[in-house]
Amino acid sequence: MTVRVDLNISLDGFATTTDQTPENPFGEDWSRLVHTYVSTRTFRERVLHDTSGTGTTGINDDYAQAYFAELGAEIMGAGMFGLHDHQDDPDWRGWWGKEPPFRVPVFVLTHTPRPTIEFDNGTTFTFIDAAPEEALATAIAAAGGRDVRVGGGPTTVKQFLRAGLVDQLHVAIVPILLGRGIRLWDDLRGLESGYTISSEAAESGVIHLTLRR
Amino acid sequence: MTVRVDLNISLDGFATTTDQTPENPFGEDWSRLVHTYVSTRTFRERVLHDTSGTGTTGINDDYAQAYFAELGAEIMGAGMFGLHDHQDDPDWRGWWGKEPPFRVPVFVLTHTPRPTIEFDNGTTFTFIDAAPEEALATAIAAAGGRDVRVGGGPTTVKQFLRAGLVDQLHVAIVPILLGRGIRLWDDLRGLESGYTISSEAAESGVIHLTLRR
Ligand SMILES: NC(=O)c1ccc[n+]([C@@H]2O[C@H](COP(=O)([O-])OP(=O)(O)OC[C@H]3O[C@@H](n4cnc5c(N)ncnc54)[C@H](OP(=O)(O)O)[C@@H]3O)[C@@H](O)[C@H]2O)c1
Ligand SMILES: NC(=O)c1ccc[n+]([C@@H]2O[C@H](COP(=O)([O-])OP(=O)(O)OC[C@H]3O[C@@H](n4cnc5c(N)ncnc54)[C@H](OP(=O)(O)O)[C@@H]3O)[C@@H](O)[C@H]2O)c1
Repeated sequence: MTVRVDLNISLDGFATTTDQTPENPFGEDWSRLVHTYVSTRTFRERVLHDTSGTGTTGINDDYAQAYFAELGAEIMGAGMFGLHDHQDDPDWRGWWGKEPPFRVPVFVLTHTPRPTIEFDNGTTFTFIDAAPEEALATAIAAAGGRDVRVGGGPTTVKQFLRAGLVDQLHVAIVPILLGRGIRLWDDLRGLESGYTISSEAAESGVIHLTLRR
Repeated sequence: MTVRVDLNISLDGFATTTDQTPENPFGEDWSRLVHTYVSTRTFRERVLHDTSGTGTTGINDDYAQAYFAELGAEIMGAGMFGLHDHQDDPDWRGWWGKEPPFRVPVFVLTHTPRPTIEFDNGTTFTFIDAAPEEALATAIAAAGGRDVRVGGGPTTVKQFLRAGLVDQLHVAIVPILLGRGIRLWDDLRGLESGYTISSEAAESGVIHLTLRR
């Protein structure tokens, strides 16, 4: 059982973007940040339900496959689930449509829990107000021996990193400079000690960096 | 003629370190930040005058060779030259001993210029108080058609990047998190546009990233 994180970050370390508008709720920067990931065959099949077999293969797709492989449960923050953008909508069910790609229990950290949401494909969203250690114990119990992913966003991931709870951190460093947003790396001086580090260069200057315990 | 920058930065983007003490004037973090660079055969020969042929070869050494190749002139900031640490010493001649590795005219940007310093091996340090454009014109005139390197530190490099004067930026991203210091990437949103980007993974997780016009 591995506690894993996978994020796309910009060269200057940002894991969120800031140019969302009502007309473009994801924003241009988000497309640029996640471009190589969402272009993979795995993302297209698993998240967009595009089974036409288009999408890239190769290094980026290998990481996209690993993203979903062996997953037993997921933890995410209220921001990633969309609660901050949909505070006043009690019926908000997340960004992922009728078949969220997780297919496992997902625990959404929030100070204002709501009733659990269930989907036919095995995905459940359970809202919990808990410290990282406690949330992790809950997710591990639900994961049936498989991995727990801390999905994001950066505020949540940093909590788990600082608490020393993450066994494997994979970042795809995308060679764009966003200049603003929430940085993944703040106040993590010395994090690398205790990890073995490897890096792999993909197309278009994207770099996959992995810290493993 | 190419205007080039080469820097070692940490994963969290810092190009300076903060743990210098009188006993350890470079500091532990500096050793960790530049470890792969100073271990190369090229650095050992060119900077340390160690001609025993020890030192690493391979990707890191290829970049170290490129660092000195085709160089016609160098620009650096007062901080990199050591003026800030040796303000009260009118005889300070830089960190590099009797044979500084540059072997070309070096222009040191400072608001308090001093007399030019000359070395037998072709290195001269000329102190100038000038805007980036003006300093670059001076260095280009001295470079005899060869490249001009903006050597550092980050305060100086950022000025040249923001002014759009840099043709090629190479960073060795070293997988350590320093947590504090001067960041290379602040306020450079969108810098990547206009550059072609490539990356290459070296040993121990070090990544060489190059932006080329
Ligand atoms: N770059 C990537 O790969 C990636 C991946 C995923 C998401 N994202 C981006 O990340 C953004 C969201 O990130 P974010 O950092 O703003 O927010 P986040 O980490 O998703 O959520 C933070 C929020 O979760 C709740 N929370 C976190 N820890 C808690 C705890 N221990 N107990 C109770 N509640 C807790 C709090 O919300 P409340 O106080 O409101 O309850 C907190 O404000 C989104 O824009 C998304 O696009 C990026
Ligand atoms: N990571 C790397 O690869 C790398 C490479 C080189 C250096 N470094 C590190 O960088 C550090 C120094 O960097 P830094 O950012 O603090 O300082 P810096 O860039 O070396 O020097 C900045 C100083 O240069 C002078 N200056 C800069 N532009 C000027 C202009 N246009 N006109 C007049 N004066 C100008 C000013 O000094 P005054 O106002 O005092 O005159 C300014 O404070 C050192 O610790 C060194 O170890 C790292």
